[in-house]
Amino acid sequence: MISRPIGIFDSGVGGLTVLRQLAARMPEERMIYLGDTARLPYGTKSRETVVRYSLHNAAFLQEQEVKLLVVACNTASSLALGELQKKLRIPVVGVILSGAEKAAASSRSRKVGVIGTVATVRSGAYEAAIRECAPDVQVVSVACPLFVALAEEGWLQDEVTQRIAQRYLKPLQDQGVDVLVLGCTHYPLLKPVLSEVMGKGVLLVDSAEEVAAQVERTLQALGLRNAPPAVTRSLPPRIYLTDCSPHFLELCERILAFPPEEVEYVDLG
Amino acid sequence: MISRPIGIFDSGVGGLTVLRQLAARMPEERMIYLGDTARLPYGTKSRETVVRYSLHNAAFLQEQEVKLLVVACNTASSLALGELQKKLRIPVVGVILSGAEKAAASSRSRKVGVIGTVATVRSGAYEAAIRECAPDVQVVSVACPLFVALAEEGWLQDEVTQRIAQRYLKPLQDQGVDVLVLGCTHYPLLKPVLSEVMGKGVLLVDSAEEVAAQVERTLQALGLRNAPPAVTRSLPPRIYLTDCSPHFLELCERILAFPPEEVEYVDLG
Repeated sequence: MISRPIGIFDSGVGGLTVLRQLAARMPEERMIYLGDTARLPYGTKSRETVVRYSLHNAAFLQEQEVKLLVVACNTASSLALGELQKKLRIPVVGVILSGAEKAAASSRSRKVGVIGTVATVRSGAYEAAIRECAPDVQVVSVACPLFVALAEEGWLQDEVTQRIAQRYLKPLQDQGVDVLVLGCTHYPLLKPVLSEVMGKGVLLVDSAEEVAAQVERTLQALGLRNAPPAVTRSLPPRIYLTDCSPHFLELCERILAFPPEEVEYVDLG
Repeated sequence: MISRPIGIFDSGVGGLTVLRQLAARMPEERMIYLGDTARLPYGTKSRETVVRYSLHNAAFLQEQEVKLLVVACNTASSLALGELQKKLRIPVVGVILSGAEKAAASSRSRKVGVIGTVATVRSGAYEAAIRECAPDVQVVSVACPLFVALAEEGWLQDEVTQRIAQRYLKPLQDQGVDVLVLGCTHYPLLKPVLSEVMGKGVLLVDSAEEVAAQVERTLQALGLRNAPPAVTRSLPPRIYLTDCSPHFLELCERILAFPPEEVEYVDLG
């Protein structure tokens, strides 16, 4: 059991930021990543569809005998975590709780902003998780559908991106939030612009960074951690994508600094 | 055979603009529309994936006994038309040829611009079709990935959209094109901005408008046209979506001015 890999899935390649954090923290663990690039994005789709796709992804990773499943996608974590935890016999960790805990603990104004996809914001998952941690915190959520497209276009530090960010983030600034949760795996790519627009007094919480600690605690608690190796160099992860268009392979490379030859194709229907 | 419906598929709901044109031109024809909203967009994905999804969509519409298939999606028309024509025993009409013919016939500068998704532009389908019609025409193509997101966000006549359009369209202006093919079903929603940026001397070609005439000619040639009815009111179309999130139902309504109750859900995997 112990040497079995950690499974990670995301709607696309954005969740590779989560894999990077996990590998940095636990270089002795093997990782298998599945990006459902053929059916992405999840963020505009219904709960039913996101649950169905999440179960497909989990089934594929279970066949690879993973010992723990990380749902790196915020939308899938928001809409499908309960269903996955009910159906699978391994621990399932989403990204919402870690981000919510960090946000609740960090806010001094007790006003937290959350940005995410339409589906994540509509689900109210971050609000519920933050209120569970700290009932006194007020949460203001805004869907930012253009951010994924801007990040994928590579317009990361760009005047157009800045103007769009100013427009999306205005209600959060008006409410005086001092913590902003980046509730989508693509958004950390826009950190410089988001940080500039929100100003220095606002902490940006990246759920990808936070979740690695939660995964480590969970493995530890269950006695599932691998023994530290003699040399602490990360094992190369296995990466599967449901669509291997040049577009996604380029994005993989950009996020991981990684040769796309090591990406395998898998057909989930 | 004659009273059998016309089948139309698109990756999403943008192709409803094609349905609207068909219904306006042939009110006596029944229409069945399938939007693969669960797996959209196609425009960032590989040829293999787009062909596979297109064959799924066509199979569903064939079960509904359609007499002709319209591929309303530019990406699917670019990547999968040949495969569909090979596999199906009914006529299959894509949107590329109609747009290409119109563009080739209209350009006086003999320089035509094409905008579309990454996959459509990479396929070179418009270039090939335009050159086939008019070998002397020079084609300049640009992928505009942000346009779909902007159209879905409803930022149709917006300063940000204008700036993005200026950036994307600059190479086309520099080359002196006098015709611009809108090679994606979402782009007609941005016509006012595109028209303003390109200037009055540039004709915008909407493939959705052009394809209705081609479908009518094809049905006529094959003796498959329905008899004109006594009252020329369009028959209500049957609309199927593979994901019925509120987001898509709102878009349906915006494009068709249509109650979303009449939209049915279908699971294609």
